[in-house]
Amino acid sequence: MIERSGGRATAAADIHTVRGDWGPITYPQVVGHEIVGRVAQVGSAVTKHQVGDRVGVGCESGSCGECEQCKKGQEVYCLKGNLQTYNGVDADGTITQGGYSQTTVVNEDFVLKVPESLDPARVAPLLCAGVTLYSPLKHWKAGPGTKVAVIGMGGLGHVGVKIAHAMGAEVTVLSRTLSKQDDGLAFGADRYYATADPATFEKLAGTFDLILNTVSAGLDHSQYVNLLAVDGTLVILGAPTAPISVDAMSLVAFRRSIAGSANGGIPDTQEMLDFCAEHSILPETELISASQINDAYERVLASDVRYRFVIDAKTFA
Amino acid sequence: MIERSGGRATAAADIHTVRGDWGPITYPQVVGHEIVGRVAQVGSAVTKHQVGDRVGVGCESGSCGECEQCKKGQEVYCLKGNLQTYNGVDADGTITQGGYSQTTVVNEDFVLKVPESLDPARVAPLLCAGVTLYSPLKHWKAGPGTKVAVIGMGGLGHVGVKIAHAMGAEVTVLSRTLSKQDDGLAFGADRYYATADPATFEKLAGTFDLILNTVSAGLDHSQYVNLLAVDGTLVILGAPTAPISVDAMSLVAFRRSIAGSANGGIPDTQEMLDFCAEHSILPETELISASQINDAYERVLASDVRYRFVIDAKTFA
Repeated sequence: MIERSGGRATAAADIHTVRGDWGPITYPQVVGHEIVGRVAQVGSAVTKHQVGDRVGVGCESGSCGECEQCKKGQEVYCLKGNLQTYNGVDADGTITQGGYSQTTVVNEDFVLKVPESLDPARVAPLLCAGVTLYSPLKHWKAGPGTKVAVIGMGGLGHVGVKIAHAMGAEVTVLSRTLSKQDDGLAFGADRYYATADPATFEKLAGTFDLILNTVSAGLDHSQYVNLLAVDGTLVILGAPTAPISVDAMSLVAFRRSIAGSANGGIPDTQEMLDFCAEHSILPETELISASQINDAYERVLASDVRYRFVIDAKTFA
Repeated sequence: MIERSGGRATAAADIHTVRGDWGPITYPQVVGHEIVGRVAQVGSAVTKHQVGDRVGVGCESGSCGECEQCKKGQEVYCLKGNLQTYNGVDADGTITQGGYSQTTVVNEDFVLKVPESLDPARVAPLLCAGVTLYSPLKHWKAGPGTKVAVIGMGGLGHVGVKIAHAMGAEVTVLSRTLSKQDDGLAFGADRYYATADPATFEKLAGTFDLILNTVSAGLDHSQYVNLLAVDGTLVILGAPTAPISVDAMSLVAFRRSIAGSANGGIPDTQEMLDFCAEHSILPETELISASQINDAYERVLASDVRYRFVIDAKTFA
């Protein structure tokens, strides 16, 4: 059981859920899958966590534990389907409920240790946004000598810039306009380009080893594939509902790839938290109380947040 | 200068060229980029080959030699554009001419050593088809414990089955019908499925680490993406003119990729020839004389060849 001290982030995922974009919802339903707090109570068989520990819960809170993917620590890709932290169906048939609450009960294997050095009022978005960026950056080997672009400077993208920079990659932001350029450069981007300017696509053709697309809304993916270097990969992290359409020759002629990536397994999530503590990486957040959620919901829709809201869970009284 | 003993293969590429599918052609034009013969004469600075050596020439016969890709031996992805064996523009402005000829002159760096154990009447198709399959099988690490599917049992596909099998992978053929099933199993396939049967796509969902698509004509790529395992890659080897369209979630939820791959660099091509010699791999071919080319052209269009024509270059008298 994790108690209410600490924060819960509000994320685009919550909004997708409210809208039913990701499929049918069972009501009543409590959203929230970026959860931070302290352990209030432990079951008798728990060995990994103790009362008082600062801990977190991300997008998944269960998986089969037996398949090839679970054994590799890739629970997010569990072959039997992982258990979503909210709106999932647990083994006993109960519907899981998320973090917009005073307490939550989670299997210890899916509880992360949150380093004390990371401000609890800001750290929560790392549990989804953080690992969603960290995992592909690690998997596709971002680091010194690699050129990484991040499409979109929102809740996901701004964390991606910070992590990719800390990994040593050369980082470019591709955002619709230059309105957040100062922020991007402050977060560690080496370059910042407006994709509303067609010259960007000419200038950067063939440049990047890795492009992370954090934008759900339909993009012209062919335009971005052409920005990849030989052997480069464009990774889709959002969940666009429209099909992705690309020119085959632009893949064939330069051995380029388009891939997708979900958030990350539990080992990667823990590693990401430790990495962020080591490099003092925190999301940019605005702390709100429970009574401000409806207002925050509208502001997320209007892209009027830099860059994530965190709800003070003490206010879920 | 390579003389006329040995063969030249006729390939789908020749037909694409005749039709202008791959862009404008400069006439007069001689096609053919799977060339085998013996060295008839060498220039004074040549050190790699001697008169009498059995040698071959593939799709490229030049590149800048200085870019990052050339230095890695990936001349096919030369950043300044490689020199195509035919219909390319050489440094001095001449248009390159291919292998349907008695002799050809090629830069020694782009001349491959063809092991004497490989029948010259059959070996030529390895120089494009062979390396086009070998290179992605190597790049995406096909071998013992990996499950590889080959889409299409034609000139490319049948060589892919032989090479993937020799690498130790578990090989499945995905062909429209079962008409070539006996051949496929004889070439080393472990399984053979008809894609005209919708049950194939249900049965094989989530199976393959690597799928090589050798079919140029428009496929429903989403169907094939769903056959990939977690972290699996679908590689496009043909050159479909229609855009590739796939569902983003089917990539994201299983960290799958779609990639393209051209033929292969000179080191990979040499390695492939040596590998084929070691494993006694040869394409299945039908030897024809120059006078039969027009008939063979029609038979390739009608898929009436198992699996490649080789033209006896002695008949180009």
